[in-house]
Amino acid sequence: MLLADLDTPALVADLDIVQRNVRRMADLARRGGKSLRPHVKTHKSPDLARLQLAAGATGITVAKLGEAEVMADAGFNDLFLANEPATEVKATRLAILVRRARVAAGVDSLEGAAILSRAAARAGVVVGIRIEVDTGLGRCGVRTAEAALEIARAVCDSPGLRLEGIFTHEGHVYRASPEEVRTACVGAAARMREVAEVLRTEGLPCGLVSVGSTPGAAAMADEPGIDEMRPGVYVFNDGMQAALGSAREEDCGLTVLASVISRPEAQIAILDAGSKALSSDRAESGSRHGAILGLPQARIDWLSEEHAHVDLRGVPAAARPRLGEKVRIVPHHACACVNLHSYMVVARADRVQDRWPIAARGRMQ
Amino acid sequence: MLLADLDTPALVADLDIVQRNVRRMADLARRGGKSLRPHVKTHKSPDLARLQLAAGATGITVAKLGEAEVMADAGFNDLFLANEPATEVKATRLAILVRRARVAAGVDSLEGAAILSRAAARAGVVVGIRIEVDTGLGRCGVRTAEAALEIARAVCDSPGLRLEGIFTHEGHVYRASPEEVRTACVGAAARMREVAEVLRTEGLPCGLVSVGSTPGAAAMADEPGIDEMRPGVYVFNDGMQAALGSAREEDCGLTVLASVISRPEAQIAILDAGSKALSSDRAESGSRHGAILGLPQARIDWLSEEHAHVDLRGVPAAARPRLGEKVRIVPHHACACVNLHSYMVVARADRVQDRWPIAARGRMQ
Repeated sequence: MLLADLDTPALVADLDIVQRNVRRMADLARRGGKSLRPHVKTHKSPDLARLQLAAGATGITVAKLGEAEVMADAGFNDLFLANEPATEVKATRLAILVRRARVAAGVDSLEGAAILSRAAARAGVVVGIRIEVDTGLGRCGVRTAEAALEIARAVCDSPGLRLEGIFTHEGHVYRASPEEVRTACVGAAARMREVAEVLRTEGLPCGLVSVGSTPGAAAMADEPGIDEMRPGVYVFNDGMQAALGSAREEDCGLTVLASVISRPEAQIAILDAGSKALSSDRAESGSRHGAILGLPQARIDWLSEEHAHVDLRGVPAAARPRLGEKVRIVPHHACACVNLHSYMVVARADRVQDRWPIAARGRMQ
Repeated sequence: MLLADLDTPALVADLDIVQRNVRRMADLARRGGKSLRPHVKTHKSPDLARLQLAAGATGITVAKLGEAEVMADAGFNDLFLANEPATEVKATRLAILVRRARVAAGVDSLEGAAILSRAAARAGVVVGIRIEVDTGLGRCGVRTAEAALEIARAVCDSPGLRLEGIFTHEGHVYRASPEEVRTACVGAAARMREVAEVLRTEGLPCGLVSVGSTPGAAAMADEPGIDEMRPGVYVFNDGMQAALGSAREEDCGLTVLASVISRPEAQIAILDAGSKALSSDRAESGSRHGAILGLPQARIDWLSEEHAHVDLRGVPAAARPRLGEKVRIVPHHACACVNLHSYMVVARADRVQDRWPIAARGRMQ
């Protein structure tokens, strides 16, 4: 079957590109002497996570318990929940899951550590703990080394908890220009070494220093004192990564196949893929809602829920897509796009190979 | 069971508010002498569509064939696909569906009409056709009365097609200020009457003139020559409707229940509901990603995929939500938010009543 035979909109993963991306990131981590724990929130697919493990990843990262449960059900046994399960119900679910799979979790407060300790003790398990450190994003994570130290001491003194180390998501690189990404990463890595040093000086077992982002991966691979990297979106790449300089268009392995359903004016095409197929995440300029393969002058300038409005003014008349014609859109943000679909069509070039469930989609909690 | 007992994030529909919204819109349409065909793309739920029919809706509107198929499976038999199924595969699917349910469809080109005619003839069915007229949104729809006339003639001459009338989505009201909404609707209604008049003068059976949007409903109910209204989001309302003046906060019947999972600074709370629970659709100012019930001074200023960053500077210290505390967020855009979830928890005030599947979610094509 050919991609052209699919009804639209359809999410398509190009397996040749995906495998190349997976191999490259594994090589990058290996050369830097880092272990690689890919963030599976990008694809939510056990099939893809298996490709990543086969290429040398030591385990996987998840964003929420629902993802952890789906991945544990699929046989994964070394997970890190890079988030704070800081409520009674989440802590209890985590502790129950730890009975059948190794899942470490994030903590960024004394109270969060206490909740997890009680849940672990009740379930009779020991949960690996990594303390989250904010290195510039301004989201979760302790703001000072002193706070990290205080929490680390509490974790070491708490039944059911075992301190594994510290982690950060250097997500502020997404606010940087391509030229600033490396500087931001160097700063974040220095901050992580500093916090780790404070903990170790106090005799605390801060065994592992973990960072994570795709734009930061190249810089972080060179940084001393960093043990693990947790990039996610590299598996597909997308418009955001291209804009940040972390991927070229030919490295983008995820597209949404769409049809032209209206040509109401000579310079406009309307596609049947809107924000419910691509997501509303967008660039501030250019073809804001994704790039159409082979039509670099076409601009997807706005979306409604089931439509993309394409400005064809820059496209020569003969090259403008006709009614019924299919195009492939590289989304601006792969993670948000994938999360809208229940499965991805797996292809090599224009040939359909398989259909993989996005198994953890909809596992909201 | 209480809402407070749910794990988070969870999509919650308040049935008292929803029923009031459904009744009000039905009354508005009845007083204006219009029939009401609610757009179910907002909720994708047969349960909610049944409430709308029970209140007097004459049928339902869908955005895509997948929604039509789900609703037909659920027993609905009077549907309008307010979109152009202008590809061979979509036309064929539509024709097959028409064998078991009455589904009219949109057309805005001669070529689209020809594709549908061939598919209907092959399937041995007659498909009701409404010609889409652009009244200012600039998406699908003919731009001139002459184009409408030409297509209407072709439809009348085509086997398998029966002309029902014309329709528009006056979606440009979303670009208007609250004061401009009525003027935009008056203009759109005048345009629809003008096109209908051209068709009727030429002896074509333009039986029905249909418009559709929630912000425009109040104005359109007063307009002569309009037969049908197709609002969607009124069933829930949301931050966008509140900003447009078409709903008050107490009319917003959809919330996302979320937990505080981190309080990294005194003036910041991090919630476990990000763009994968709320969508990335956002306001340009204020609490851009949704309003927190009971905390009007709190501002959700940015989201990542699984986190909301809440600026609490305007909230008195004693009222700031603590770690583990739950809050309810009125999303900026209900349709995009619902589409991320597999079910909605149905509640009356703080009591859980039921759980309704968002049955057409994920039916991408």
